[in-house]
Amino acid sequence: VQAGSVIVMSVPSASFRDVTTQVAALCEPDDMVISATKGIERRPQGGGFLLMSQILDELLPTRRVGVLSGPNLAEEIADGHYTGTVVASRDDGVCDTVRQVLRSATFRVYANSDVYGVELAGALKNIYAIICGIAGGLHVGQNTMGMLITRSLAEMSRLAVSLGANPFTFLGLAGVGDLMVTCTSPLSRNYQLGSRLAQGLSLDQALEDMGKLAEGVNTLGVVCDRARELGVYMPLAFGLHRLLFDREDIGAVVTELMTGGQPIDVEFARPDSTLTVGAG
Amino acid sequence: VQAGSVIVMSVPSASFRDVTTQVAALCEPDDMVISATKGIERRPQGGGFLLMSQILDELLPTRRVGVLSGPNLAEEIADGHYTGTVVASRDDGVCDTVRQVLRSATFRVYANSDVYGVELAGALKNIYAIICGIAGGLHVGQNTMGMLITRSLAEMSRLAVSLGANPFTFLGLAGVGDLMVTCTSPLSRNYQLGSRLAQGLSLDQALEDMGKLAEGVNTLGVVCDRARELGVYMPLAFGLHRLLFDREDIGAVVTELMTGGQPIDVEFARPDSTLTVGAG
Repeated sequence: VQAGSVIVMSVPSASFRDVTTQVAALCEPDDMVISATKGIERRPQGGGFLLMSQILDELLPTRRVGVLSGPNLAEEIADGHYTGTVVASRDDGVCDTVRQVLRSATFRVYANSDVYGVELAGALKNIYAIICGIAGGLHVGQNTMGMLITRSLAEMSRLAVSLGANPFTFLGLAGVGDLMVTCTSPLSRNYQLGSRLAQGLSLDQALEDMGKLAEGVNTLGVVCDRARELGVYMPLAFGLHRLLFDREDIGAVVTELMTGGQPIDVEFARPDSTLTVGAG
Repeated sequence: VQAGSVIVMSVPSASFRDVTTQVAALCEPDDMVISATKGIERRPQGGGFLLMSQILDELLPTRRVGVLSGPNLAEEIADGHYTGTVVASRDDGVCDTVRQVLRSATFRVYANSDVYGVELAGALKNIYAIICGIAGGLHVGQNTMGMLITRSLAEMSRLAVSLGANPFTFLGLAGVGDLMVTCTSPLSRNYQLGSRLAQGLSLDQALEDMGKLAEGVNTLGVVCDRARELGVYMPLAFGLHRLLFDREDIGAVVTELMTGGQPIDVEFARPDSTLTVGAG
């Protein structure tokens, strides 16, 4: 590895810690290490979870870390479809370098300084892809799908803010851009899982039928635990949890969504919001 | 009209001023008047445009005005599909009353206090539906569509902020919810116009072929004029304007989008953003 190099890590979240340990042995303090992995790691003890950038910060000798995320289907990038992505780092120099190194005539890189927000968006969206897969399997209309995706954004950003992220990140490519694509794409494993659940299969049956894992299931468990600890209201995630693990009827989950206690369109837009943008 | 009534006005924007004048003659200071019209009115002189709520404020004897917007296809509401909408008013009592009056087991109403933001989102989205119709007609991939819709949100909220609206509104049902549905729906006239433009028809040919107007064309002209006056960077809207009215090649428009000067994912998320949320 040459000093000042850019290393992009795209490995499954379950192997991320091991690979980072190996990279750490090769990496210089000037190097830039960028995670392209969308996932979370459950903390072995003490509750909560770690994001991939937190594993990089913990193990690497460089502070020049960042993350990449966005609506980026690899096959489409390879085929030359116009694609936008986000690089997020607290170090503006990392963002500038990654933008220069990765950009091409068909690939555009935008910058964001909210690392946790970008990572949380990429990880959390898998939960909502399952929900939209269920909705798609039930042949809901466009009004319903638009409401589901928007309310998904509301609760994703609500949790993210409670963890110190910036809700505006959810207005960008890693937020709404990636969510929209994942939640309407039958190519997503999480969406496929939802479709099977809509047919009446149990979680175990659906996973067996697919023959592969859906990342959103693990994310769901960890995130619901954390949201309960923090007192964050996430009716869609909690409803999916009851549907998957308590086999609650979908009608009850829908009723909670339509009659739940939170009447505000966008909480952060309220004049009495205590959020200070840019504080973090 | 009974005192303290709720009047919902859903008329074409071209007739809105006339109908409001008639309503004004019947309306009491306690009545609540809500616009469900998505559109703008070009100011006859002096440049710029008025939103429907500004026409209500100008002509009515009541200050209790509001607007309704969101991903709300009328046919789907009538068919009982689950639907979410937004009521926006500076008067919390108006929001509460409308929420109670309109809600049902399948229709949920969320509140927002950012009236102009909600109206601007509903009007501006028609411009981006034309652009997404072009993209759909060119068979772009999901990465590209995700980028287009997200960058549409970026420039819609940029203009809205310069007009005093709250960018967070674009994270809600009237913003991303409505935009996403309109920009992926072949039912939208604006999307249909875009599809025809992608086939190589001129604007006049495409409109003649459709046999009906697309609201986004008028909105585009007024909005581009205003954005130039205010110095707001809107590469997608300006590019569409050159495509429609100067018959510029689509390749040049795409190149500007992929190489343009604005490298930030979400401007309002920057630590140096001067935006103060909740000030308005």
